[in-house]
Amino acid sequence: MTATEAPTDRSYAEELDAGDPLGAFRERFVIDDPGLIYLDGNSLGRLPRSTQARLRQLIDSEWGRELIDGWDRWLDLPMTVGDLIGTELLGARQGEVVVADSTTVNFYRVAAAALDARTGRRAILTDRPNFPTDRYVLQGVAAARDLAVRWLEPEPVEGTQPSDVEAALDEDVALVTLSLVNYRSSALADLPAITRLAHDAGALVLWDLSHAVGAVPVGLEEHGVDLAVGCTYKYLTAGPGSPAFLYVRSELQDELRNPIQGWFGQRNQFAMGPDYDREPGIRGWLAGTPAVFGLAAVDEGASLCAEAGIEAMRAKVTALTELGIALHDAWLAPAGFTLGSPRDRARRGGHIALRHPNGRALSERLATVGVRTDFREPDSLRVGCSPLTTRFTDVWDGLSRLREMTS
Amino acid sequence: MTATEAPTDRSYAEELDAGDPLGAFRERFVIDDPGLIYLDGNSLGRLPRSTQARLRQLIDSEWGRELIDGWDRWLDLPMTVGDLIGTELLGARQGEVVVADSTTVNFYRVAAAALDARTGRRAILTDRPNFPTDRYVLQGVAAARDLAVRWLEPEPVEGTQPSDVEAALDEDVALVTLSLVNYRSSALADLPAITRLAHDAGALVLWDLSHAVGAVPVGLEEHGVDLAVGCTYKYLTAGPGSPAFLYVRSELQDELRNPIQGWFGQRNQFAMGPDYDREPGIRGWLAGTPAVFGLAAVDEGASLCAEAGIEAMRAKVTALTELGIALHDAWLAPAGFTLGSPRDRARRGGHIALRHPNGRALSERLATVGVRTDFREPDSLRVGCSPLTTRFTDVWDGLSRLREMTS
Repeated sequence: MTATEAPTDRSYAEELDAGDPLGAFRERFVIDDPGLIYLDGNSLGRLPRSTQARLRQLIDSEWGRELIDGWDRWLDLPMTVGDLIGTELLGARQGEVVVADSTTVNFYRVAAAALDARTGRRAILTDRPNFPTDRYVLQGVAAARDLAVRWLEPEPVEGTQPSDVEAALDEDVALVTLSLVNYRSSALADLPAITRLAHDAGALVLWDLSHAVGAVPVGLEEHGVDLAVGCTYKYLTAGPGSPAFLYVRSELQDELRNPIQGWFGQRNQFAMGPDYDREPGIRGWLAGTPAVFGLAAVDEGASLCAEAGIEAMRAKVTALTELGIALHDAWLAPAGFTLGSPRDRARRGGHIALRHPNGRALSERLATVGVRTDFREPDSLRVGCSPLTTRFTDVWDGLSRLREMTS
Repeated sequence: MTATEAPTDRSYAEELDAGDPLGAFRERFVIDDPGLIYLDGNSLGRLPRSTQARLRQLIDSEWGRELIDGWDRWLDLPMTVGDLIGTELLGARQGEVVVADSTTVNFYRVAAAALDARTGRRAILTDRPNFPTDRYVLQGVAAARDLAVRWLEPEPVEGTQPSDVEAALDEDVALVTLSLVNYRSSALADLPAITRLAHDAGALVLWDLSHAVGAVPVGLEEHGVDLAVGCTYKYLTAGPGSPAFLYVRSELQDELRNPIQGWFGQRNQFAMGPDYDREPGIRGWLAGTPAVFGLAAVDEGASLCAEAGIEAMRAKVTALTELGIALHDAWLAPAGFTLGSPRDRARRGGHIALRHPNGRALSERLATVGVRTDFREPDSLRVGCSPLTTRFTDVWDGLSRLREMTS
């Protein structure tokens, strides 16, 4: 099927489910609500059964019984879970990723570190459609250093192209930072080309992978990415407020300065020596005490993703979003919708945006009939396709109800 | 009893347990190891039964079933749990405390904000015995701003006195920051006097309450404290890596600038507007997505503390540490120990430090016979007294085994 052919029967979606190599993963999740069509896993992923068991063990047996000795297990979790995500899902090398803190705090830390390593250059390059927390953090670090933010204003659906970046780059740019997958449009940026352009101009590059990780392969090592951050509560299914990841390319780990010099980044931490002496490598990018419950949940969620395999996850989300686009074209475009996501499957992440002037009201009405999507200003109803839990029939049924609502 | 009288019989401790108004709280905790004498709750508190139930509900029902709609419950937790801690345990006003991020990240944020509000002043005043992460963060923020850190070097057991602060203060000091209770010696600083001296010199004052909260009343409003942070996994029993709290005095919340401008501090967050527009009040001090599991655990732990009452908790830890000191004098001083904590109960927090040249080995040997303490360089074996779970007989039995080991 391509997005230009309109499937006409639900059996089409049923057959895709029957042939889905990742279909069995859905049984690995707690799904107590068989009537719910959950198309919001790009905002908060479902609860894996293994996570439920792991958290119970962590709370009851490890904290409850081992008490302080539990730290023997917990102390290395930021690095071991980071390596799991890094090597299995991001194409990073061992020792380049840690899991700790929020995406916002991590983004702040690596953005500040990059800027402080490129003093003399006075500009940050990003785009207006970037995720809000990235934009706000950048405004803060720019103001604190009296730097300028250069805002690209791409065509909203397709997002920032390498040519846009090239036209805005010069020797005054210290840092180029974009989201790999846009939170609203799902536009997937050309990471290899943009990274190369930034490096050619002598800038560092920082990717926010929050909406990409677990939906698309990234290739951090292959493309020589300097810095990255991302969230674990979407496709990595690690639960609300689970800790984020932070990637620093090996060659930069000791050159750049972590602005938050905390005791978890200290060499020989429990010697508690008088002066900060940064632990070499990625451990030196930790700051405070890591959130152990959240880390355990990331470990389980990322393990499921690793078991599924990022290429299979990529294929699944592509097929799900293709189906969604075909149904949009057949059912929803006549009712006043426009597609807010790229039609080129190679330039799209794990969700699609359906734009409609009444998008908010429609998303809310859908929820009342058991279809959970979400809405992003000004007019995008987002349909999230989680590779491990969303069925083709979920997309079919969800959009079918939307069609009924608007026809 | 005073610390100079030596109790001679275990029945003395049994009677104290029998008369302990907080004695029944121990049954509110999961204690599967009746043989364990746990004297390390100042490092990691025990698991409350209510927390066990709350986390199960949060995971299974809220995340597992409500999915993204759970955020309707979770979104205000940083403020509601902050208010619980602030008003019940810290003597703050409503709307002055949030729970989010680690102590390290919070300490960084408020220290940086304070320094950026007092530009022109070139020094930070703290002390050498301060907790490592505070010292390391201060070295980082000082280096980034080309400021000097002035290190007080107090007599180690008694800690920094107001006269030490007074002698080191001048118009070049932007920020005075100390721990209210020292992590090693348990020395309790004179917060009212030091805060007043700092203010008289035009400096802002930042207290680290990590080892104080839940063991001593603080009086943030009464004493006009500007800024504070603290940890929740000790006496607040919120579990490993649970999120920390951050206090900003109402009058400063809009004057100081949160250096990490994240989307959770944005006015009308989900409008996702183009520019950072800080939410007024304490909510504007949030940064990224808060750790929901941890927040729920803090809520439960802090609720238990609020139910017990901070004055009763203070009385209990004072009586427990008094007993420990009496037993040290009677049993351990003859075996080569010296007391590493203040004898004045008004100048001591919730643990005592027993100094011995073989402190590390003794702490490790104690663990093998079921007595869990911890060790802090260079020679302090710490005996933690948790007001809701430690019994007088625990202190008696634990130190009795230490006596057997050293006599």
